[in-house]
Amino acid sequence: MQIEIAITTQPIDLRRELPGEISGSAGAVAEFTGLVRGEEDGRPIAALEYEAYSPMAENVMQGIVEALNRGQPCLWVRVTHRVGVVPVGDAAIHIVAAARHRDAAFAMVAEFMNRLKQDVPIWKRRALSHGELKLLLPR
Amino acid sequence: MQIEIAITTQPIDLRRELPGEISGSAGAVAEFTGLVRGEEDGRPIAALEYEAYSPMAENVMQGIVEALNRGQPCLWVRVTHRVGVVPVGDAAIHIVAAARHRDAAFAMVAEFMNRLKQDVPIWKRRALSHGELKLLLPR
Repeated sequence: MQIEIAITTQPIDLRRELPGEISGSAGAVAEFTGLVRGEEDGRPIAALEYEAYSPMAENVMQGIVEALNRGQPCLWVRVTHRVGVVPVGDAAIHIVAAARHRDAAFAMVAEFMNRLKQDVPIWKRRALSHGELKLLLPR
Repeated sequence: MQIEIAITTQPIDLRRELPGEISGSAGAVAEFTGLVRGEEDGRPIAALEYEAYSPMAENVMQGIVEALNRGQPCLWVRVTHRVGVVPVGDAAIHIVAAARHRDAAFAMVAEFMNRLKQDVPIWKRRALSHGELKLLLPR
C-alpha cells in the first residue's frame, strides 16, 4: 500500500487522482473533507487556528493508517491536515482512500477520523472573529 | 436539504464544490466513487456496460436519499450514475454528501451504496474485452 501523510500551512489540494499504477485495480475511492464551520460554541467565527506537534502528529497519523490497513487493506491512502489559520469554508483535514472494494475504503476513512480526534496531537488553538481575521489577512 | 440525482451516459463530473448557500454551515463532506476494475470474475476486461430503467432508477435513488436524510439530516447530496459503456478506471457511480457533522455525511454515503446495489434498477449488462471496446470506440 502507498501512504502519503502531510501537515501543511497552505490550503489543502483536494485533488484525488489515483496513482497510475493502481488505476484498474481500485474499484472504490472513499473520501472525507472536514471544513471549518461559521460558528463555534454558538457564536459566529471567521476562522479557526490549528496547532500541531509535527512531526509527531505525522508519525501518529502514519501509524493509524498502517494499523487500520492490517484489518482491511487499501491500495492507496493520502491524509493532509492543515494547521495555522484556516478560514471558514476551507478544509482543515482531507483523507482519501482507494481500495479494491468499498468496505475497506469506507472503513479506512471513517475509522481514521475517529482516531484522529482521540490520538493525534493537533488541536484547535483558538477561534478568530471577523475583525481578528481581517487584521491577520488584510485584503 | 438539496438533492441532485442524475443518470448520464457521459463521464461523471467529479467536482464537489458545495452550493454557496451551505458554505459555512457544512463541516463535513463525505464522498464515494465506484470505479470499473480491470477484471471481472477473474478475467481481464476493458469496460463494463451498465443499463438502467430511467427515470425509475432516478426516482428510487431520490427516495433512498430522502429516507436516509430523515434519520441523519444532510445539507446537500449529489448522486451521479453513469450508464452505457464505462471503460476500466472510469467512475460508474459518484455520491457526495455535505452535513454539519461527519456522522450524517458518512451514514448517507455508506448506506446509500448498500441500498443502491439492492434496490436501484441499474445493472451490469456485460463486460467488454479490449477487442470489443476497440470496435466500439475506435481511436
